[in-house]
Amino acid sequence: MLHVIGLGLGDATDVTVKGLETIRMCDRVYLESYTSILSISLMDLEQFYGCSILEADRELVENNVDEILPKDEKENVAFLVVGDPFGATTHSDLILRAREKGIKVKIIHNSSILTAIGCCGLQLYRFGETVSIPYWNNSWRPNSFYEKIISNRRRNLHTLCLLDIKVKEPTTESMVKKKKEYMPSQFMSVSEAATQLLEIIREKNEGIAEEAVLDESSLVVGLARIGWDNQRIVACPLGQMASVDLGPPLHSLIVPAIELHPLESEFITLHTGEQKH
Amino acid sequence: MLHVIGLGLGDATDVTVKGLETIRMCDRVYLESYTSILSISLMDLEQFYGCSILEADRELVENNVDEILPKDEKENVAFLVVGDPFGATTHSDLILRAREKGIKVKIIHNSSILTAIGCCGLQLYRFGETVSIPYWNNSWRPNSFYEKIISNRRRNLHTLCLLDIKVKEPTTESMVKKKKEYMPSQFMSVSEAATQLLEIIREKNEGIAEEAVLDESSLVVGLARIGWDNQRIVACPLGQMASVDLGPPLHSLIVPAIELHPLESEFITLHTGEQKH
Repeated sequence: MLHVIGLGLGDATDVTVKGLETIRMCDRVYLESYTSILSISLMDLEQFYGCSILEADRELVENNVDEILPKDEKENVAFLVVGDPFGATTHSDLILRAREKGIKVKIIHNSSILTAIGCCGLQLYRFGETVSIPYWNNSWRPNSFYEKIISNRRRNLHTLCLLDIKVKEPTTESMVKKKKEYMPSQFMSVSEAATQLLEIIREKNEGIAEEAVLDESSLVVGLARIGWDNQRIVACPLGQMASVDLGPPLHSLIVPAIELHPLESEFITLHTGEQKH
Repeated sequence: MLHVIGLGLGDATDVTVKGLETIRMCDRVYLESYTSILSISLMDLEQFYGCSILEADRELVENNVDEILPKDEKENVAFLVVGDPFGATTHSDLILRAREKGIKVKIIHNSSILTAIGCCGLQLYRFGETVSIPYWNNSWRPNSFYEKIISNRRRNLHTLCLLDIKVKEPTTESMVKKKKEYMPSQFMSVSEAATQLLEIIREKNEGIAEEAVLDESSLVVGLARIGWDNQRIVACPLGQMASVDLGPPLHSLIVPAIELHPLESEFITLHTGEQKH
């Protein structure tokens, strides 16, 4: 059987009791290591579980998934995912491949950044479509996320912006070589995300006189390491967020709706005094 | 300290290791018992935790919240919530009241129905605003959820419909009496939700010739007891869902986007053979 197990957002003890019991009885244990990060090392995780863990990078999961799947009916394989197993498309693919081969699949859910952000005080049912903000380079500057944020704001909805993660991405030069070489890992910060948003706003609004749906005075919320002991949440205008340093990854940015519910406003003020400049 | 602890969606073992350790060291433990249900009894939960649990009903949480909060700095109180602590507005209020009184608050996240629905194969980032479908009565037939579903579909987004739960609601007659009397608990089923949606569609489309954004032939997904051992997922046209019986609560209904991603379509077909008529 394939057990796809969410690990939650923080440290080793964020696994559920059911998840831990399952991991301990599995023959092989993989950790998906390219769409998120844990607050602890692989070695600490192995020690807590009392078993060894194989790292599943993008190449293994996307190109050699059969290697992960159980070899026969008796074998139990655990595939560990930070957060909830259904955050990333890739895991749907793994589950489909297992089902195709007649392998039973069991899911053990856990918390996800998609709902854990509720701890900032914005109501989860008031979030519209989630967007992803990718790193720009000189030739590639996609901005479709901006239109989605605006569309959410026009309907008075909040937007969660997931920020780009680059882990074990092959360098352009090594793509054609036999031996892949990887770029250093990169995790977009709230200040980088705010800077890209401000650039789009400047380009879009150039020469336009009417009031903007989103500008540098709009309230945004930066979140870092949610679920970790050292999590931080800061609420401030977008213009200010471009120079806020929330420390190590992972970061997320929320662009709230134009109007807040009184309970939301009250909660958000808990985070407005925290800025460090 | 006040510890607000998510229990996840299923049975006792869906609590996180961190959550369990915290519960066991608390002086008082409350279970919020009116916005969701667990698959096991309170007694089984007490046995698993090894401590007694106080039930926190709507009246206690909304009107006597101070009774729940820690009496002094040394007291540790656990407030247990099925799913993730931030699913319902009420818990924001509890946390704000604690913070006002200078009480430290710690959140322990867990899985929520808002993300666990990803197990049906629809991508979470393609969900628009979540809606709630309330029970109608003779004089009260709100239908604002319909417009939100249509608005999501126009932008090619999925909609999660949370279905009404009535637990410990006082009867109209008892509202004026000293001693409250309660109505029997009610949990809306996917067939009841589909029936109300079909009624709205008939009313809205009467005499309109143009093609509807949502009609009885539109694909919908019914989910029951997600995260439980006996969970069920059925995908079928809305017209058919009105007569599908998915068994005991809790149920949720998804109205998918008009176009599905190929991976989503493939996943959804896993659930189309399951209908029982």
